[in-house]
Amino acid sequence: MSAALHLAKPEHLDRLLPLIAAFHAEEGLEQTDEARRDALAPLLDGSPYGAVYVVGPARAPIGYVIVTFTWSMEYGGLDAMIDELYIRPAVRGRGLAGEVLQKLARMLKDAQVHAVHLEVHTDNPGAHRLYEKSGFRLREGYQLMSRVLS
Amino acid sequence: MSAALHLAKPEHLDRLLPLIAAFHAEEGLEQTDEARRDALAPLLDGSPYGAVYVVGPARAPIGYVIVTFTWSMEYGGLDAMIDELYIRPAVRGRGLAGEVLQKLARMLKDAQVHAVHLEVHTDNPGAHRLYEKSGFRLREGYQLMSRVLS
Repeated sequence: MSAALHLAKPEHLDRLLPLIAAFHAEEGLEQTDEARRDALAPLLDGSPYGAVYVVGPARAPIGYVIVTFTWSMEYGGLDAMIDELYIRPAVRGRGLAGEVLQKLARMLKDAQVHAVHLEVHTDNPGAHRLYEKSGFRLREGYQLMSRVLS
Repeated sequence: MSAALHLAKPEHLDRLLPLIAAFHAEEGLEQTDEARRDALAPLLDGSPYGAVYVVGPARAPIGYVIVTFTWSMEYGGLDAMIDELYIRPAVRGRGLAGEVLQKLARMLKDAQVHAVHLEVHTDNPGAHRLYEKSGFRLREGYQLMSRVLS
């Protein structure tokens, strides 16, 4: 089982949606299939704001990672955020997520991205350890605040 | 004194840089003028990743706000992040930052942006109050982790 990453294209939409629905169910994110499709499709169509990679064989993916792009004065320009990372439950515990994070970091660095960020649940020590091992450090002294507009 | 917002263009670069340097000095962000120029110029040149607004008269700005764009599956698509917001010390305490945040939220909503986010220092109750009053809520249960790539 390898954590090969393939850039997802419009033809991968129908294979990705059930994986995304499974991730959202685990995370307790309530969203209709239509809303997920509407949010995903522009990224597969080449939107500059993000890219989706299928993990493993493109015809039978074992997971996916969605990376989004933004800009930061502090970090000096183009930045990335890991929006979602999912590995099928049946193949967890084999280090695949860590492999995905290392491959992704290498690709982003080659693409001149200055820094990559992610959000972690405060009460998930397993995820903290995985991200620490993959070179991520807590951004101490800051909290995120959000205002929904729609 | 009004918090009118004008979209900054390349000709505003030299008026913006001293304000950004003042903000970075307040925040303890160490960066060369050249690095600031390199990170700012693409946004003034029309990069899709962000926009810069000068606050007040464009020829004698009293502040600036940098908003960056990203994508979120959870929020359903295009999202914004307030990267930097600065009001000159001489005109603080008059509610200008709150006005800027309201105007910005209205503009972003009109542009079909789903949510706007910002980072706040955990030990800055004045900023927390300002953002709460402007409709922002703490994103509880999550922390940000970062890996610098460059």
